[in-house]
Amino acid sequence: MINIAVMGYGTVGGGVVEVINTNHESINKRVGEEINIKYVLDLRDFPGDPAEHLIIHDFEQIVNDPEVKIVVETMGGLEPAHTFVKRCLEAGKSVATSNKALVAKFGVELMEIAKAKNINFLFEASCGGGIPIIRPLNSSLTADEIDEITGILNGTTNYMMTKMSMEGAEFDDVLKDAQAKGYAEADPTADIEGHDACRKIAILSSLAFGQFVDFEEIYTEGITKITAVDMEYAREMGQTIKLLGTSRRVEDGFYAMVAPFLIGPESPLYSVNDVFNAIFVHGNVLGDAMFYGSGAGKLPTASAVVGDVVDAARHMHCTIMNNWSSGKLELMSTDDVQARFFVRIQGSQAEMLEAVKAEMGDCEAIALENHPEEFAVVTPVMSEKEYKAHGEKLGDKILGMIRVKL
Amino acid sequence: MINIAVMGYGTVGGGVVEVINTNHESINKRVGEEINIKYVLDLRDFPGDPAEHLIIHDFEQIVNDPEVKIVVETMGGLEPAHTFVKRCLEAGKSVATSNKALVAKFGVELMEIAKAKNINFLFEASCGGGIPIIRPLNSSLTADEIDEITGILNGTTNYMMTKMSMEGAEFDDVLKDAQAKGYAEADPTADIEGHDACRKIAILSSLAFGQFVDFEEIYTEGITKITAVDMEYAREMGQTIKLLGTSRRVEDGFYAMVAPFLIGPESPLYSVNDVFNAIFVHGNVLGDAMFYGSGAGKLPTASAVVGDVVDAARHMHCTIMNNWSSGKLELMSTDDVQARFFVRIQGSQAEMLEAVKAEMGDCEAIALENHPEEFAVVTPVMSEKEYKAHGEKLGDKILGMIRVKL
Repeated sequence: MINIAVMGYGTVGGGVVEVINTNHESINKRVGEEINIKYVLDLRDFPGDPAEHLIIHDFEQIVNDPEVKIVVETMGGLEPAHTFVKRCLEAGKSVATSNKALVAKFGVELMEIAKAKNINFLFEASCGGGIPIIRPLNSSLTADEIDEITGILNGTTNYMMTKMSMEGAEFDDVLKDAQAKGYAEADPTADIEGHDACRKIAILSSLAFGQFVDFEEIYTEGITKITAVDMEYAREMGQTIKLLGTSRRVEDGFYAMVAPFLIGPESPLYSVNDVFNAIFVHGNVLGDAMFYGSGAGKLPTASAVVGDVVDAARHMHCTIMNNWSSGKLELMSTDDVQARFFVRIQGSQAEMLEAVKAEMGDCEAIALENHPEEFAVVTPVMSEKEYKAHGEKLGDKILGMIRVKL
Repeated sequence: MINIAVMGYGTVGGGVVEVINTNHESINKRVGEEINIKYVLDLRDFPGDPAEHLIIHDFEQIVNDPEVKIVVETMGGLEPAHTFVKRCLEAGKSVATSNKALVAKFGVELMEIAKAKNINFLFEASCGGGIPIIRPLNSSLTADEIDEITGILNGTTNYMMTKMSMEGAEFDDVLKDAQAKGYAEADPTADIEGHDACRKIAILSSLAFGQFVDFEEIYTEGITKITAVDMEYAREMGQTIKLLGTSRRVEDGFYAMVAPFLIGPESPLYSVNDVFNAIFVHGNVLGDAMFYGSGAGKLPTASAVVGDVVDAARHMHCTIMNNWSSGKLELMSTDDVQARFFVRIQGSQAEMLEAVKAEMGDCEAIALENHPEEFAVVTPVMSEKEYKAHGEKLGDKILGMIRVKL
């Protein structure tokens, strides 16, 4: 019997207990031993809950119990999660977490402790919910130099972008709808401003490139400026708009970015709709691959956490994660990143197109019949710095800009 | 330094040598030691080839060399591959193979030897080329009861189906085109009759359900009967036709099948085109997931083989694969499988629809303007046995049948 403790009995923690209870037979068969939940740590009591008798309020009970071999951290946030996880690892207990903030900030430190102790710090659920992506990056795509990793990493915003694209709805209305459906929180900032996706692409990039990528250095732009008219242009061009977290290895180095992008049907990410997430990976020998599934939700996320518990149980004295050195990856300045830019211009094509082309180079122009007061162009490839310089000259004639996925 | 040997210097074996040479720096970093190719076994000589000095013709040199710790098998076919792999494992050498025929037939035996010897028999490249799917099934989706695994598992036939769907081309013409492009072999039987997909779904089902699924018991139907008119009907219904390998856990047991299916845009497999492969998995807690990528080709397949070499090197005395018992999974008779059937009927709707409905139940009818001499129906859900019984009564009025993906 392998005793585990669950820290944090919220949505994901509750899901972990539910998954272990529901699938205990197949899980125990796969581990080769019985997985037993000994404690559930939470500040609250849960009278009448099936896990009521497991609830404890004192972390010391877990860290001081030598019978507890694996600890699940589903509290979220940095503190006390960081202190608790660190102390568990130092006490020789493997940890499985769904906490992207913790992994993005303290992943290097926690993996190093796990390695020194010959145990495991696993975090499959921190990116892409139930989608297996952390383990494939660590254990499968090891023959490749990864050139690119780009993901639809946030279900809330993908639901909103899908609804705006398909129904022509405005941002504020789809946000209210997402909140009503429980997809978006009362304070939706972390989702719609891209902060959630930023932490996830930092973790994925660190794994893909084998060096720590600091989320605080990743340029992050949310979806709050995307309008129904932007989506009309996208449809007119046979494309759609998605919030992407992306990082690439280019000639001059590495860059990483979170922003809304125009994306066409030639990308497998184009068809990823609603609350689904997907992570596209390009390897120098593998070529294109994509991992698709439920990026959030109680049970899918719990499925990934429990998968980590099973792996930790199968590898009690063997560290699995080993593809992420503490050396920090220096990212290129966003100014030097090359892109094409979709730019909406005030005025008619007849008045303005030549002036825009004189600035931006040989642009492709797009007009919408029902919006004669403006048009849009897609620029040639140029650096962000060049775009800014040209854009400044056009001043307030520029109504908006969205990057085009290369 | 870890010495390896490559058996079979054909397309995939050549790719393995190329990948190890191209990415040696990152591969060695991930392993923590240098991977050195000591031998390449082939019947032929390769004068002038970069690997010329490694070529040997005698298997005994490999099996008797205690320095060789990992052996790559990329010969294909059952013999001598089976004998060689078995002897390598018995000699304590881990094996990585791309050979689906070998794994489908002898996987149980070879995994058991590996387990007894505390080494590894790995076969990520046997299904889905470069797509990580074997390792995710074994190591990631372990918290779930897998209900369904359905894949586009053969790039050649998916290229052909895509071309027929998009261009309205006939089967014989797309086959010739696929052969001219090198996607189909001179003898395309294994691809177009579904034998290749059959072995792959047998391997995937064995992993997903944790028991050996015998490929010889899987009902297998190829794409040779699919015509341009079938594709016209599919388009009319907003669907397409794909060759799928599928297995499901249903109330009465498990079934597995390879056949062309009508599939609509609500499935993530619908958008998987050209030579790409994808594997859809449904778990009882995970929900839907899909793994997408290059299902064949020299370098993608070699990427998966070398990924296995890296994993074997990282786990020299620790068996990784452990989710496939030797107990055989009894499959339901195909007769008892429930499906909806798309059926083309000779005659006009006015003449025939009532008679068809009297037999098949409340069918949805579809007519093509340019084919007034026939129409089609989609039946309600019924068993294959029921369908056959009804179909016999309609006799030669039935021009063709394709299953509809539920």
